[in-house]
Amino acid sequence: MKVGYLGPAATFTHLAVSSCFQNGAEHVAYRTIPECIDAAVAGEVDFAFVPLENALEGSVNLTIDYLIHEQPLPIVGEMTLPIHQHLLVHPSRESAWKELDKIYSHSHAIAQCHKFLHRHFPSVPYEYANSTGAAAEFVSDHPELNIGVIANEMAASTYELKIVKRDIQDYRDNHTRFVILSPDENISFEVNSKLSSRPKTTLMVMLPDDQSGALHRVLSAFSWRNLNLSKIESRPTKTGLGHYFFIIDIEKAFDEVLIPGAMQELEALGCKVKLLGAYQSYQL
Amino acid sequence: MKVGYLGPAATFTHLAVSSCFQNGAEHVAYRTIPECIDAAVAGEVDFAFVPLENALEGSVNLTIDYLIHEQPLPIVGEMTLPIHQHLLVHPSRESAWKELDKIYSHSHAIAQCHKFLHRHFPSVPYEYANSTGAAAEFVSDHPELNIGVIANEMAASTYELKIVKRDIQDYRDNHTRFVILSPDENISFEVNSKLSSRPKTTLMVMLPDDQSGALHRVLSAFSWRNLNLSKIESRPTKTGLGHYFFIIDIEKAFDEVLIPGAMQELEALGCKVKLLGAYQSYQL
Repeated sequence: MKVGYLGPAATFTHLAVSSCFQNGAEHVAYRTIPECIDAAVAGEVDFAFVPLENALEGSVNLTIDYLIHEQPLPIVGEMTLPIHQHLLVHPSRESAWKELDKIYSHSHAIAQCHKFLHRHFPSVPYEYANSTGAAAEFVSDHPELNIGVIANEMAASTYELKIVKRDIQDYRDNHTRFVILSPDENISFEVNSKLSSRPKTTLMVMLPDDQSGALHRVLSAFSWRNLNLSKIESRPTKTGLGHYFFIIDIEKAFDEVLIPGAMQELEALGCKVKLLGAYQSYQL
Repeated sequence: MKVGYLGPAATFTHLAVSSCFQNGAEHVAYRTIPECIDAAVAGEVDFAFVPLENALEGSVNLTIDYLIHEQPLPIVGEMTLPIHQHLLVHPSRESAWKELDKIYSHSHAIAQCHKFLHRHFPSVPYEYANSTGAAAEFVSDHPELNIGVIANEMAASTYELKIVKRDIQDYRDNHTRFVILSPDENISFEVNSKLSSRPKTTLMVMLPDDQSGALHRVLSAFSWRNLNLSKIESRPTKTGLGHYFFIIDIEKAFDEVLIPGAMQELEALGCKVKLLGAYQSYQL
């Protein structure tokens, strides 16, 4: 079994893949989220494992938009991971870490530590990398540069960097949700037996144009069936300012009656509705 | 009158400031969105002019989160600008623009041209700058590097760069909304007389914890009053995965009866409600 993930080694996605799958799965790193999803579509890997949402920074727009507009792969599972951000430097720079010239990481990791950076490194510029792992790899390869990187513990050991400040995220309760995508929506796989799980169903709903109150009617269809929504998220349809679609998470397994009933009703109201996945949500 | 904006010169925000205000306003560039907002709070400038939402890429999270969590400045106006992205290079590199080593710009600008880059520069890495203007300035200062920058026409003339490919955004209908913030919510200002305008009211609503269907009840409060919502956007509260607040735009001036009535009702339901601004929305 092959699992593609947003690499390189030791990204948070890699940490999530390693915590989720039983031994025996082969992990294949991709440089970007679209490349990873494309690889699952092309059959190079059985699954694409990519970040979807962080508790502090919100949705990973690239994942949502690529799934909706480019490669509509079903969601076959989800994994939630606690996120701890640390400040890492090259071992040869350990004593001088308070005088960094630059801080390098993924834009979400930098945003999660914005207050810390503002307080401790107010005038140090930062630069964005494709992933925390890629940033750590770069710092490891460039001992001549006095750069700090924000990344996880796995990155410190993989790239032999020193953790000079632990848990620098601005808010304590930091988690990220990752989705597991596969072209085969009925694919079965074994996960780490220590994980707990609960069922979930995710829909995409696009409202009819220019109907005042349409979202209210959409939510009514779920409300009167007692379908609890754990999330509703708006994203632009890319057809003009003010046009949105909605991603709706229902805290319930897909059934034969209630969810299909709500979907049919929404279509009758003129909405475009799509089932993005009915799956188990795992956590440690 | 002094207006702070996300600089340096020739960013899209600068273009919006120049299109919005009458002659006589002094424009002051800031390096980041938080610095620009902080300057308005400190009284260094009368207004902060910052991007809020793009039609392709969605909300500028940094602006929304900074307004909600750090510096609650009232919105006193809004400006919508059509966005045209071009590929620019240093004039000495014009003939070799198809063999770029790197593409540099703001992350939103790169995301807006994702398909173009995927098709024409599939293996060229990109790097993120604080703004399109900062990226153009860097390319102008480094003729020795073979870098392309995605930016606007004003950046091409300000930094003396060559436009080698025009209108490279992936979707035609590309606009960005900018908000005008001021510590004085009753401040009056004159705008370019060619702009059209319409009134708008923006609220922040935080739902009570763990109430299934709470968002449906919130929308009911607007729906039965015939208050048309042009936008509803969810953002994480940063207190844990699954906790959101909502930004709601109402297509109506703040009045004495309907909007205050809806706000009181939401508070009675256990929501936290805040008026972020009642203002005019301008466009060319």
